[in-house]
Amino acid sequence: MNNSDLANALLQACQRRGIMLATAESCTGGMIIAALTDIAGSSAMVDRGFITYSNEAKMEMLGVSAATLDAHGAVSRETVLEMAAGALVRSQAGLALAVTGIAGPGGGSAEKPVGLVWFGIAITGRPVVAERQLFADNGRDFIRRETVRHALELGLRALA
Amino acid sequence: MNNSDLANALLQACQRRGIMLATAESCTGGMIIAALTDIAGSSAMVDRGFITYSNEAKMEMLGVSAATLDAHGAVSRETVLEMAAGALVRSQAGLALAVTGIAGPGGGSAEKPVGLVWFGIAITGRPVVAERQLFADNGRDFIRRETVRHALELGLRALA
Repeated sequence: MNNSDLANALLQACQRRGIMLATAESCTGGMIIAALTDIAGSSAMVDRGFITYSNEAKMEMLGVSAATLDAHGAVSRETVLEMAAGALVRSQAGLALAVTGIAGPGGGSAEKPVGLVWFGIAITGRPVVAERQLFADNGRDFIRRETVRHALELGLRALA
Repeated sequence: MNNSDLANALLQACQRRGIMLATAESCTGGMIIAALTDIAGSSAMVDRGFITYSNEAKMEMLGVSAATLDAHGAVSRETVLEMAAGALVRSQAGLALAVTGIAGPGGGSAEKPVGLVWFGIAITGRPVVAERQLFADNGRDFIRRETVRHALELGLRALA
């Protein structure tokens, strides 16, 4: 499925469960919620998106702690878990998708290379889960598109 | 200029002024901030985005008042002014771009047809301004893309 089909399928899964959806996005910068709201009629299932590009935004909009950012960095399991949990409790949504990663071309390091992305999924009544992906460094556009695709797939799988 | 060139020019204008940028988006659902963050190095100028698809999100994330939404609706001068002002004060940004409109295909009326979009611009130390556009109903994608283009142009013009 392409990203548009995935977005459509995820919205239908939300509709079947009677829940709304929220996103908390760093490296994708709004692309996930833009893909979802590209679908006509999405307003019944899309509540809101927290596009937290700066660390201040992650703290102020999602409640990510300064201690977590200091100790683990913005691109980490700990941060994405707090992003997803924060988006769920600060919205009307029953499913929150969070992503934070390094889309490049700058910002990479030996420990956290360009293409590293952490995903977080929060669903009401379940523990928040995180997953790590390392996408090939085929450019910023590629990494961002693959991140959108994977986030939509994770959301679909979580609701299956 | 295409939307990518406009996004680049707007980021450069922000950089020259030493300010960051925030968006408050309804009908574009994150497309404006996605276009901006598509540019490598944008993290120095992009602070955050409030993607307020639902009315609850407009109230909770941006402080739009229930009275305004009741009296004027989500697609109105009054709502977009409150969205832009709310995004400016609830961020680190010196420029906030807000949009709310009817991308269709549903949701239009005689008074507020598909293609109607309100734009709001808030800049630190200036009065918040709003502008109305009625785009041709050439489909949801067209209206959303034209809305992104016009928002970026308005931001550029405001900083010129």
